[in-house]
Amino acid sequence: MRVLGISGSLRRGSYNTRLLDAAAELAPPGVEFERYRGLASIPPYDADVDALGTPATVSELKRLVAEADAVLIATPEYNASIPGQLKNALDWISRPIAENPFRNMPTAVVGASTSGYGGVWAQAELRKVLGLLGARVVEGEVAVAHADRQFDESGRLVHGETRDQLEQLVADLLAATRPVAVAA
Amino acid sequence: MRVLGISGSLRRGSYNTRLLDAAAELAPPGVEFERYRGLASIPPYDADVDALGTPATVSELKRLVAEADAVLIATPEYNASIPGQLKNALDWISRPIAENPFRNMPTAVVGASTSGYGGVWAQAELRKVLGLLGARVVEGEVAVAHADRQFDESGRLVHGETRDQLEQLVADLLAATRPVAVAA
Repeated sequence: MRVLGISGSLRRGSYNTRLLDAAAELAPPGVEFERYRGLASIPPYDADVDALGTPATVSELKRLVAEADAVLIATPEYNASIPGQLKNALDWISRPIAENPFRNMPTAVVGASTSGYGGVWAQAELRKVLGLLGARVVEGEVAVAHADRQFDESGRLVHGETRDQLEQLVADLLAATRPVAVAA
Repeated sequence: MRVLGISGSLRRGSYNTRLLDAAAELAPPGVEFERYRGLASIPPYDADVDALGTPATVSELKRLVAEADAVLIATPEYNASIPGQLKNALDWISRPIAENPFRNMPTAVVGASTSGYGGVWAQAELRKVLGLLGARVVEGEVAVAHADRQFDESGRLVHGETRDQLEQLVADLLAATRPVAVAA
């Protein structure tokens, strides 16, 4: 079982990246978490460039999504919406829409913010976009508000209630990877 | 009077870029339209990079916005939301939020799409983001649906009703640049 984690923040000390680390820690044994590290190298989406061929960094991201059993995205909120570069990566992944690797992919969205709201607007917009891509977006919200108080100095998520919520969401995400039983 | 036009599409034959050309054509004499051409060169927003200093391409964009009397943004819709690279440029412009050049800037949003909806979701999300930046977002929507049928072979907007709507919105945008009279 492989989960691909994508952080929408490029900052080295990002709370969202730490949230992915916490999700990996809270997952049951046998679940392999891989964190995507190439977000900064995705070029701006340009249909003229796309027509010439998919850039190598985009192909790599598409392959990582396609090979995953589930995807967990941790997003900060920039100006009440999705960080531009994260959305740009999804814009590339989405082409062509009928073959995009998010189709039927179990996907969960979480987020952390130093504000009092935990980035709920960015998360909502991101779920809408993922739904359009055909992802099976797992319900459940982990919106880490006041993120600067919820991690210790080593970057470990210490807030108990948030850990419980995240553990539950990871369990729900993993459950969504099971084939749906067909009634006889 | 100077209006800065920003197209959210990088495609050479973009209908949104043509929509900005149409707006320039429909503006009254004496209004100078400048089209921003540097969108592809804005790097991904990264708070660590930001902490080291504003990249030159971002400073140039901030200067262009600050020196304009009004801004007109034409946006395509990618996956039911704002194109990532356009949002990324706004994320850079917004820092620091209190000094961002969109504060009190008369700004209008238009959009074109080959779909039947004209990109209204992207426009709505963009207006929300601009509102958060403190822009004076002018009401009125020009959502060009079936864009492939509304421009002639030379790229000129030919659909009469759309031209009328765009002319009105440009007039409203220019009117918003006038100082508000204070009652004696």
